[in-house]
Amino acid sequence: MKENTLGSPVVPVAPSRGRLRPLGLDEVRITGGFWARRRHTNATATLGHCRDWMERVGWTGNFRAAVEGRVPRDRRGREFADSDVYKLLEAMAWEGGHDTDVAALAETIAPAQEADGYLNTAFGRPGQQPRYSDLEWGHELYCYGHLIQAGVAQTRARGEGELAKTARRAADHVCATFGTGGIEGVCGHPEIETALVELARATGEQRYLEQARLFVDRRGHRTLADPEFGRVYYQDDQPVREATVLRGHAVRALYLAAGAVDVAVETGDDDLLAAVVRQWETTVARRTYLTGGMGSHHRDESFGDDFVLPPDRAYSETCAGVASVMLSWRLLLATGEPRFADLAERTLYNVVATSPSDDGRAFFYANTLHRRRRGTLPPSQAESPRAESSLRAPWFAVSCCPTNVARTLAVLPAYLATADDHGVQLHQYADAEIATTLAGGHGVALRVRTDYPSGGTVTVRISRSPDHPWTLSLRVPAWTTGAIARLVDPDGARRAVTVGSAEVTRLFRPGDEIRLELPMAPRWIEADPRVDAVRGTAAVQRGPLVYCAESVDLPDGRDVDAVRVDTSTAPADGPDDTVVAPGELAAPGETPDAAWPYGPPDPAAAPAAEPTGVVLVPYHSWANRGPSTMRVWLPTIAPRT
Amino acid sequence: MKENTLGSPVVPVAPSRGRLRPLGLDEVRITGGFWARRRHTNATATLGHCRDWMERVGWTGNFRAAVEGRVPRDRRGREFADSDVYKLLEAMAWEGGHDTDVAALAETIAPAQEADGYLNTAFGRPGQQPRYSDLEWGHELYCYGHLIQAGVAQTRARGEGELAKTARRAADHVCATFGTGGIEGVCGHPEIETALVELARATGEQRYLEQARLFVDRRGHRTLADPEFGRVYYQDDQPVREATVLRGHAVRALYLAAGAVDVAVETGDDDLLAAVVRQWETTVARRTYLTGGMGSHHRDESFGDDFVLPPDRAYSETCAGVASVMLSWRLLLATGEPRFADLAERTLYNVVATSPSDDGRAFFYANTLHRRRRGTLPPSQAESPRAESSLRAPWFAVSCCPTNVARTLAVLPAYLATADDHGVQLHQYADAEIATTLAGGHGVALRVRTDYPSGGTVTVRISRSPDHPWTLSLRVPAWTTGAIARLVDPDGARRAVTVGSAEVTRLFRPGDEIRLELPMAPRWIEADPRVDAVRGTAAVQRGPLVYCAESVDLPDGRDVDAVRVDTSTAPADGPDDTVVAPGELAAPGETPDAAWPYGPPDPAAAPAAEPTGVVLVPYHSWANRGPSTMRVWLPTIAPRT
Repeated sequence: MKENTLGSPVVPVAPSRGRLRPLGLDEVRITGGFWARRRHTNATATLGHCRDWMERVGWTGNFRAAVEGRVPRDRRGREFADSDVYKLLEAMAWEGGHDTDVAALAETIAPAQEADGYLNTAFGRPGQQPRYSDLEWGHELYCYGHLIQAGVAQTRARGEGELAKTARRAADHVCATFGTGGIEGVCGHPEIETALVELARATGEQRYLEQARLFVDRRGHRTLADPEFGRVYYQDDQPVREATVLRGHAVRALYLAAGAVDVAVETGDDDLLAAVVRQWETTVARRTYLTGGMGSHHRDESFGDDFVLPPDRAYSETCAGVASVMLSWRLLLATGEPRFADLAERTLYNVVATSPSDDGRAFFYANTLHRRRRGTLPPSQAESPRAESSLRAPWFAVSCCPTNVARTLAVLPAYLATADDHGVQLHQYADAEIATTLAGGHGVALRVRTDYPSGGTVTVRISRSPDHPWTLSLRVPAWTTGAIARLVDPDGARRAVTVGSAEVTRLFRPGDEIRLELPMAPRWIEADPRVDAVRGTAAVQRGPLVYCAESVDLPDGRDVDAVRVDTSTAPADGPDDTVVAPGELAAPGETPDAAWPYGPPDPAAAPAAEPTGVVLVPYHSWANRGPSTMRVWLPTIAPRT
Repeated sequence: MKENTLGSPVVPVAPSRGRLRPLGLDEVRITGGFWARRRHTNATATLGHCRDWMERVGWTGNFRAAVEGRVPRDRRGREFADSDVYKLLEAMAWEGGHDTDVAALAETIAPAQEADGYLNTAFGRPGQQPRYSDLEWGHELYCYGHLIQAGVAQTRARGEGELAKTARRAADHVCATFGTGGIEGVCGHPEIETALVELARATGEQRYLEQARLFVDRRGHRTLADPEFGRVYYQDDQPVREATVLRGHAVRALYLAAGAVDVAVETGDDDLLAAVVRQWETTVARRTYLTGGMGSHHRDESFGDDFVLPPDRAYSETCAGVASVMLSWRLLLATGEPRFADLAERTLYNVVATSPSDDGRAFFYANTLHRRRRGTLPPSQAESPRAESSLRAPWFAVSCCPTNVARTLAVLPAYLATADDHGVQLHQYADAEIATTLAGGHGVALRVRTDYPSGGTVTVRISRSPDHPWTLSLRVPAWTTGAIARLVDPDGARRAVTVGSAEVTRLFRPGDEIRLELPMAPRWIEADPRVDAVRGTAAVQRGPLVYCAESVDLPDGRDVDAVRVDTSTAPADGPDDTVVAPGELAAPGETPDAAWPYGPPDPAAAPAAEPTGVVLVPYHSWANRGPSTMRVWLPTIAPRT
């Protein structure tokens, strides 16, 4: 890895070394399209929704109660409720226009911090468990992690304030308590690792990095108790650098991997980085849903065995999607390899964008790929007690997902582009304005125009450029495999480009336009035959979007299990970003039950069906039109033999 | 329903009314074959194994500790640990040759009973939660249920003793505490219902029946708190008589249904009986594995949605298999319909017989239908903390299954045959001697000879018969559908018989022989297309036995995922009850990973494979030859198009 040549912009991850330098919220502005709409809803609806709910369910009140000596009596929520206040603060810090709210919330929190920096409303007071008496489940260090991330966000986005000071006092306390000679433990839920590295980057204090390195190195040495799900649940079964695949609780595994990348990058530990890259590769090849979703077990929210990816029992937690984007982004910065941006794109469009409802006030916790029963709308004024794969709920007893989505959307522009000594790289496509400074202090500015992912044309107009050649790189997504992507340079020369990076190196002049043309025809997708649960089915993808059949689009009240598709003919574009898949629909009404659903093969037993075009919609948009059934993987019509 | 004409024999279920009268351990003796071997192992190994483990882990010691005032300090095990001691006692009572052991264990328990009949080592003492303060999870009534079943077993098998008296005092306490005017609650885990009805049958005391009726009627009226999994978890979401399918925690649902049948039969409540029959029908049609296994969710040990039956995440708890047999047996007695014996047979051979190892000292808790990783042997001297679908374990932290298997095998002969006013019915086939008294006091005796399920010939020799005509009924299993079963009467006349009951009515003479010839050729089985998880696969059944591929039978260290089968050719008998399935094996060695496991359909991408006959073994026998991979549902070779 080589050194960056410039300082840190307003970014969630600011490595001091690595292949690419991230561009921040001060350098990239999303001006329209898919993500602009979602960011607008996030800023105008979701942030307030989360703040109101946390007030209503008492999670912000916990800090006041702690200060006033009313804890544990008046404390509300689970042991990790503090963390959601911090995640909301992080989102508000990244998002513009919330200075007063951030300050007010930060002032609620600060007085609850004890003199030695300890801060947690669930532990340590008379009537509560002692501090650090339950590292397995207590989430104390996990909560600090989110506090520190919020503090770093505030420092980078607005300059150091109260929140940043609180976070730093907490981090100092962690170093004093868990450093060499202190408690030789780790937290049951990783998160502190990546936060401490970022704090080191933001402050220049290397002891935070050293503490993060200690936590990464300690993990896997069985310092935590063996729980019902096994130590694999919190990745304490095997040292990070020895593991070959992500395993156990998906969010824990992904946060830990992100932290390990951060430590590896800052300490120049190429072996550790290579270990995480290897784990990522195997996880992507064997343990990831078509949507990018990770974690198939409802029981322990964990990765399953290789290729155990049941669509109808997909857990695919929203937070695991967020964490996967965090990991892929760090690996992209470290290595410059577009494959990491490919997975981030898939996950952003098909997991992160799926969780919130159109109005930004309800969320999927789990993101199933097959919904068999029409659900009922969850109560709008009560917490949803369970992370059911049914309709979106406004809040959950464990409500990690809403604030995680909020902080991701708030910082999303920072995931679009990077720079290096050679020029600028575009990784994600959105209508945007980008302005940064290249090596040597030369300013460069770009205007990106696109209606991606609805359309596949991305036009980059150079509005400012140094007077020497530099390189503009555009990611050619891996999903274009099998079709032809083209690049048109400022002279109008048009050439086919292959998966990876398409580069134009030249002396750009203001007004120059580069155009990337991505093949947007919808296409059939099948799975590796080892994904047993989807044998005999196909899915449709169009651009980066996974599609699904939703019962509200089917005639005569049919459910999605009536759909069979014919993969011998390509799916076609329909109106309004829909896709029409050739196929057939079984007759309306429920299939009569057999007394026993197993018997000799009987090819004649297929139910009567009529040929039709089946309307499919983007998966991220499902369940916004009332209760419905839905499936991504559609049974194929068996070839006539 | 009509009245039985005779009194109660040594049986687990002794209805006073209903279509069929059960024959007991005093009337049916299994003399050889499949079940005789397992019963021998149960009597000589499993019972002692369970007794030793319960002593070692302290569950029997809990009673001594309670008497000596050392509880809660010295109490061991989960809140329901008492129940396993009771289930072992029940097994020992049904099984011969344990009089001293039963008495010794019973004497350990009795002193822990309080003056008012309350008996539980986990509640009510200083330092423990108060009695009945946690009906949701406390299992106090559940424990009584097993105590009462043990007491009834002792009474019927050996005449009333200490254990029966303890049980009866507990039942009196339950009636006094939960009867009309008492606590208007139910137990989070049903079980007390069926036990109280049996106690009413054994003692003639109708107040026990009335208490059972109250518990059944109260269920579903939301007297229990709403837990994380919803009230459906313990069937408190909907009244029993309104439900249309079994749902929630599988063992709870099945025990409750069994108790509801008992109440319905004794009170002549035909509506309630019809409701349970309807629930059974839908559950069998939509929520049951090919093995008869029930409950697909690991998360909450529950039934999933209709047709959600993933083989690789099958939970199929052993205890749910036991409970399903209990339910089917009650429905068979009430209605006389052979379909209930069909499911009982399937479940006995493919779930109950699968759980214990060959040596009877290790058990499956969950019974997966697809094992992808070769496990490691669990420690032989430590509890297995988790109900993993891996190798059998000698004991579990929640160890309900070993004793449940033990009490089922101990009483198994009582599930073979019944009588009514017309004659004798054989429901399950085993080498056996049967002697009973028909209406009017006429003795009848039969000798059944068969090597079923290895062979399909069942010969019934009449050794004693009244001097008037009567009817011998033999179940023609539903699995013979599509093949021809034949019956040969004492004159040698041979006729085809159809699924259901084959009957011979005549004036039998000692020495007469009736022969049932069942078609035992192995056959391909496919699933209803709504069982998404097994699309594109087939299984093999031979007689009542489900077969599987196990990696130890494959050449060159291949795993079972290398197997593809060709269902255009029938499978064939192999040596030693194996089956050879036509198919192919992918080349040895692991399939290389794709960077991303989803892409355009590519029929040419099928891995190189060699045609072969694939050796399959009975599913119940798997995992007795060391760590292996296994699958029941085998991908089919796609038809060449």
